[in-house]
Amino acid sequence: MRLSRLRPLAATFLLCTVISAQAAPPQGGKPLSGFTPARAGQQRALEARFDALLKRESLREWMRRLSARPHHVGSAYDKDNAEFIAGLFRSWGYDAQIETFDVLFPTPKTRVLELTAPEYFSYAARLAEPALKEDATSGQAAEQLPVYNAYSIDGDVTGQLVYVNYGVPRDYEELERRGIDVKGKIVLARYGGSWRGIKPKVAAEHGAVGCLIYSDPRDDGYFQGDVYPKGAYRNEWGAQRGSVADMPLFPGDPLTPGVGAVKGAKRLDLKSAPTLTKIPVMPISYGDAQPLLRALGGAVAPEAWRGALPVTYHLGPGPATVHLKLEFNWDTKTIYDVIARLKGGERADEWVVRGNHHDAWVNGANDPVSGLVALLEEARAVGELAKSGWRPKRTIIYCAWDGEEPGLLGSTEWAETHAEELQRHAVLYVNSDTNGRGFLGVGGSHTLEKFVNEVARDVTDPEKKITVWERERASRILEGSADERKEAREREDLRISALGSGSDYTPFLQHLGVASLNIGFGGEDNGGSYHSVYDSFDHYTRFGDPNFDYGVALAQVGGRLVLRFAEADTLPLNFGNFADTVARYVKEVTKLAEDTRNEIAERNRMLSEGTYKAVYDPTETYVLPKEETLPAAAPDLAPLQRALAKLQESAKNYQAAFDSQDVQARLTSSTDVQARLDQILMNFERSMTREAGLPRRPWFKHQVYAPGFYTGYGVKTLPGVREAVEQHNWAEAAEQVAVVSATLERAAAEIDRATALLQGK
Amino acid sequence: MRLSRLRPLAATFLLCTVISAQAAPPQGGKPLSGFTPARAGQQRALEARFDALLKRESLREWMRRLSARPHHVGSAYDKDNAEFIAGLFRSWGYDAQIETFDVLFPTPKTRVLELTAPEYFSYAARLAEPALKEDATSGQAAEQLPVYNAYSIDGDVTGQLVYVNYGVPRDYEELERRGIDVKGKIVLARYGGSWRGIKPKVAAEHGAVGCLIYSDPRDDGYFQGDVYPKGAYRNEWGAQRGSVADMPLFPGDPLTPGVGAVKGAKRLDLKSAPTLTKIPVMPISYGDAQPLLRALGGAVAPEAWRGALPVTYHLGPGPATVHLKLEFNWDTKTIYDVIARLKGGERADEWVVRGNHHDAWVNGANDPVSGLVALLEEARAVGELAKSGWRPKRTIIYCAWDGEEPGLLGSTEWAETHAEELQRHAVLYVNSDTNGRGFLGVGGSHTLEKFVNEVARDVTDPEKKITVWERERASRILEGSADERKEAREREDLRISALGSGSDYTPFLQHLGVASLNIGFGGEDNGGSYHSVYDSFDHYTRFGDPNFDYGVALAQVGGRLVLRFAEADTLPLNFGNFADTVARYVKEVTKLAEDTRNEIAERNRMLSEGTYKAVYDPTETYVLPKEETLPAAAPDLAPLQRALAKLQESAKNYQAAFDSQDVQARLTSSTDVQARLDQILMNFERSMTREAGLPRRPWFKHQVYAPGFYTGYGVKTLPGVREAVEQHNWAEAAEQVAVVSATLERAAAEIDRATALLQGK
Repeated sequence: MRLSRLRPLAATFLLCTVISAQAAPPQGGKPLSGFTPARAGQQRALEARFDALLKRESLREWMRRLSARPHHVGSAYDKDNAEFIAGLFRSWGYDAQIETFDVLFPTPKTRVLELTAPEYFSYAARLAEPALKEDATSGQAAEQLPVYNAYSIDGDVTGQLVYVNYGVPRDYEELERRGIDVKGKIVLARYGGSWRGIKPKVAAEHGAVGCLIYSDPRDDGYFQGDVYPKGAYRNEWGAQRGSVADMPLFPGDPLTPGVGAVKGAKRLDLKSAPTLTKIPVMPISYGDAQPLLRALGGAVAPEAWRGALPVTYHLGPGPATVHLKLEFNWDTKTIYDVIARLKGGERADEWVVRGNHHDAWVNGANDPVSGLVALLEEARAVGELAKSGWRPKRTIIYCAWDGEEPGLLGSTEWAETHAEELQRHAVLYVNSDTNGRGFLGVGGSHTLEKFVNEVARDVTDPEKKITVWERERASRILEGSADERKEAREREDLRISALGSGSDYTPFLQHLGVASLNIGFGGEDNGGSYHSVYDSFDHYTRFGDPNFDYGVALAQVGGRLVLRFAEADTLPLNFGNFADTVARYVKEVTKLAEDTRNEIAERNRMLSEGTYKAVYDPTETYVLPKEETLPAAAPDLAPLQRALAKLQESAKNYQAAFDSQDVQARLTSSTDVQARLDQILMNFERSMTREAGLPRRPWFKHQVYAPGFYTGYGVKTLPGVREAVEQHNWAEAAEQVAVVSATLERAAAEIDRATALLQGK
Repeated sequence: MRLSRLRPLAATFLLCTVISAQAAPPQGGKPLSGFTPARAGQQRALEARFDALLKRESLREWMRRLSARPHHVGSAYDKDNAEFIAGLFRSWGYDAQIETFDVLFPTPKTRVLELTAPEYFSYAARLAEPALKEDATSGQAAEQLPVYNAYSIDGDVTGQLVYVNYGVPRDYEELERRGIDVKGKIVLARYGGSWRGIKPKVAAEHGAVGCLIYSDPRDDGYFQGDVYPKGAYRNEWGAQRGSVADMPLFPGDPLTPGVGAVKGAKRLDLKSAPTLTKIPVMPISYGDAQPLLRALGGAVAPEAWRGALPVTYHLGPGPATVHLKLEFNWDTKTIYDVIARLKGGERADEWVVRGNHHDAWVNGANDPVSGLVALLEEARAVGELAKSGWRPKRTIIYCAWDGEEPGLLGSTEWAETHAEELQRHAVLYVNSDTNGRGFLGVGGSHTLEKFVNEVARDVTDPEKKITVWERERASRILEGSADERKEAREREDLRISALGSGSDYTPFLQHLGVASLNIGFGGEDNGGSYHSVYDSFDHYTRFGDPNFDYGVALAQVGGRLVLRFAEADTLPLNFGNFADTVARYVKEVTKLAEDTRNEIAERNRMLSEGTYKAVYDPTETYVLPKEETLPAAAPDLAPLQRALAKLQESAKNYQAAFDSQDVQARLTSSTDVQARLDQILMNFERSMTREAGLPRRPWFKHQVYAPGFYTGYGVKTLPGVREAVEQHNWAEAAEQVAVVSATLERAAAEIDRATALLQGK
């Protein structure tokens, strides 16, 4: 998995007043949240020493070593890499262990895809990525996993083909308007528009019996740029492996939801595992997709559905008929998480956790090794500091996760196994994954927005010699809408995006309620090696970050995040930016509810006035939309507004208290008050979780951030309310308004507790 | 040429109050502008008789006959068709004559296009459209004009290729930012984005030595739908002929600007003819373009520039190098306009002119025969009415133009030859061109907006059995923006679009100031036969309007327009809709001026703040934009606002006077007042012309409507002001504000004269 352009969407935003008050900058330096002026100077000196230790040569050598052979879950080199990484950590002075879990990990036994009709077009899919002489590791066929989707069920199906665009719910609405039903059919979806696992899920909901997912060159191939090996982009036979487990239900081992997949853990029966797909699914290259698309008849696809293959895109069904046969080895495999501890001094029971996965679909130079080598160099430098006598105030834990690719297995099983202690001790989780040339992207908890902005203001962009913060800001000014440009110029901090899913932060943030960040550079490293045999050292060092400049920059960002969180006098959380952001979410869902009702009312009106009938082309099939009953009143969002007002008030009071000289004096003089404040601050993110979780998916406990049930990776903020409105489930929307309002009130109360502590009450 | 989806753009519109006051509907019937209640009933009875005479069989048979052989300018069948059409008119009782002009019409002698480097890619272009067994006339090679662009100069050039997207000015700005100069190069542009003649013009302005224009399948080929003969769309070897004369300067014979190309007319020397291209230019198919695009190197084209060919679109320059050699026979040819008169009774000196061209690039079943056969059937029915004893009040003139395709030759030379009498007599020009299944599209003078809405409310859509007005309205409700939807529901009349160029209304409206309309159905007749050998009877009767239902509907619309204008007691012009529309234009140019200044100021700011420098990828070529001086103040548009206010006031006063019972009584009783009012109304459109014309193009005299200097067909309203602002020519903008304001004041004074006449002053 990867951070697909991490940079915040910066969508529409509120022109509300930003609560930007913060402690006056310490004399002689930029502000350093969480540090008293005196200690800020020490911290900066520490970071200067840290920077001086970083060596780009390490990153290159480790990438060469770690990506030398395929290292997916269950492979010999996966375990070998884990042991190598653990050895590195030990050599740097960490207490490093390998923690193992036994997880379900299917691999293909049979893969057959044939176009069986019309006879004239018959074709047997190639389903293989050829070795290239320009790519040294692309020919390691004996060790490579073939192209497949993990957690597809077995199946042997034959059916007419239907082209379903990205295969998201609104695509099926469009097919319905055109009178096309996928029941009993095999759907052909292109990658994109949602996380891949959504495609077979929605296809099965509509009665399809099989699902093919191909990489269209429009989104991922020659339309984007020259293909590999001439250029960086996906070639005709390149295909995208990947998991299709229903991760919006829960990630991790499909057989052990909610608990660690350790020996003796209660395991579901394979047949009842809810995150396996309901129908067989397989990814194919555009070389294999073209004959299928060419054989499709029926109506021409809507313009937005058409890709870049030199064919007229038709919807079907048929006459193209395909036979898809898939059989898997349903094995249990051992995964190897590397966990390396550097014990803190004064507040050793507060844990700063930093992770990146190490497993890959094949060689994985970009995904995940580009991020992992930055994390390793960061950890090496921290270890060097510790060897020189320094010791962090809090405990630092570096993690190299296994099994991220099939479904965040390593991080989820570890987080589930250690849930209780993590909820008691973890103050922060910082994740990275892929990394490349370009701009700093950050997603995460908005209590950390100001903190991460400070860090970004202290790291220099290797290409431009301005700070990475300035470069990202310039890009928002240049490329943003008028509103975004204005905000980028005027707001003190750059907004960070909210986290959905797609990498190992999910169990920490959304299951446990640990404040989390996800970081990475990108935007100048485009290409199409993702989850293919071509994600190699050769590819990355031509197109990713040839000099590892941005690998070093990522180590600088990650290192500062870790060192500041580990060393701060009090945890550097800010409630003003958080409340400001929640205000935007409340405004968004309010508008969404209004817009959704207006759309339904408008559609009903056009039905009653005969508008659709008057317009459609009588030579084409057209099914009128259904009339939909609207409840008399719009959902009452007033409770949400009231809870938000309370939150904003609490945040303002906290900041005022925190900024007062009295409080600063008390904090400086009392490590006991500092530690007690830490406990409240740590609990703040937890206060936004709810044991019952989200409707129909109790594993997801966070009430502010979640991956979308029908987007997979894409975030839904205030998900209980937002998704109920999106599904036109007005009764549930009303319930969820109450739930989310209560959550925000709980969060406000937590802030009030902190304020009371500061004020000595 | 064709009406490329005639339907009004209906862009953003003003929420200003619509002056919708009009005479109360006559008892027992819908309103009929220009008719007293008593005469409205007679008129409707006449129209019912007219409708009953229309026969779809006529249209089919005439299309078969007229498109049986290629009939371009100078061909035997072009003259033969003219004589056939004249014969038809005579048989229907018209005084029909063929009026000839001698015009410059080059045809190709040599056409060579070769890709000469890199050697590996070398390719000789095919430059031919193959005969198809499914298309009976596609194999008439001996009579077909080959694929070429008329009025390209001769040339023999070799140069590196540069891909320039649509080849419009902003595309060259984009190239400049990427450090690419086309000087001495040959540009490859795709069709679309502007009228084709703009492409060699802008290329030459930038120093290119040759220009190729190809049909990308994204815009015109398999991306849109199945290709011919399987489907309607342009196939691999289909190419688009067409004129590239600089028609925004002046249309018509390039050697006789402003005067008729009659015997003895003063003719320019070929070398000094300003509308010939400055560089050689040729159109090619996508089959011929693909090897060229594949051989291009350099940066990858911006995403919006990429088409649907299965290649990565590069910009060049080179290494692709092409040799283009073009030689033409620079012959003078005779063109044959058919002019058929039906003399009016009471007001024979007021002429209602109705035209459609008859020449084609090849067989031209769609362009222009589909519109022409509807006009013929309309004229036949009018002739039948006249044979039965009815005689129109005003004179009706039907015209079948020759030489429209090379540059509106037949209409322009006729209008120039008869300029004086047309300015004295012509009350209306109604044009049509291509026609097909779908929705009624109307463009024209906004004084006619209410009138044409009334007509559209009286014609039944053949597919839906609702009025064509209701169907078009439903489509605006369904497909429009929220504002457009609201307006379509609430405004009394549907807006008509303003006319730029692209068919034979241009000399009437923009040179002579005759109120004009352009009409046609379309939107369900998509396809890619335009200007190819496949624009045939076989193609049209499969994909255009197989049953000629919409041909009959066009005859009903055109017939009503003609019959009502010919018969009305007073000319059915409305100033309210006109003033309302001009108010939108004034608002648009005001906003354009503000936006343009803001953009320049923003760009200057980003330059001074280093924003561009901070963002661009240092591995790519990037040229900073230039700083641009802004005058201290925005152009003063107050004179325009004042003139508009006067116009709105005058329109309101006129309508109030017209609606009063006194005036209605006077008008009903006095044919003399009616006739005097007609004269003022006829002069209203003339009052918007100015003898000096537009800056640098005196032929274009209308100050409200003109084709864009850099769009070719696309309209620019208030062109003097709008184009000056678009070119950042602030001094000229200020001058033109004065000119346009004076025009609007003159128009208002004309309305006041009419009001005074009504009031007996």
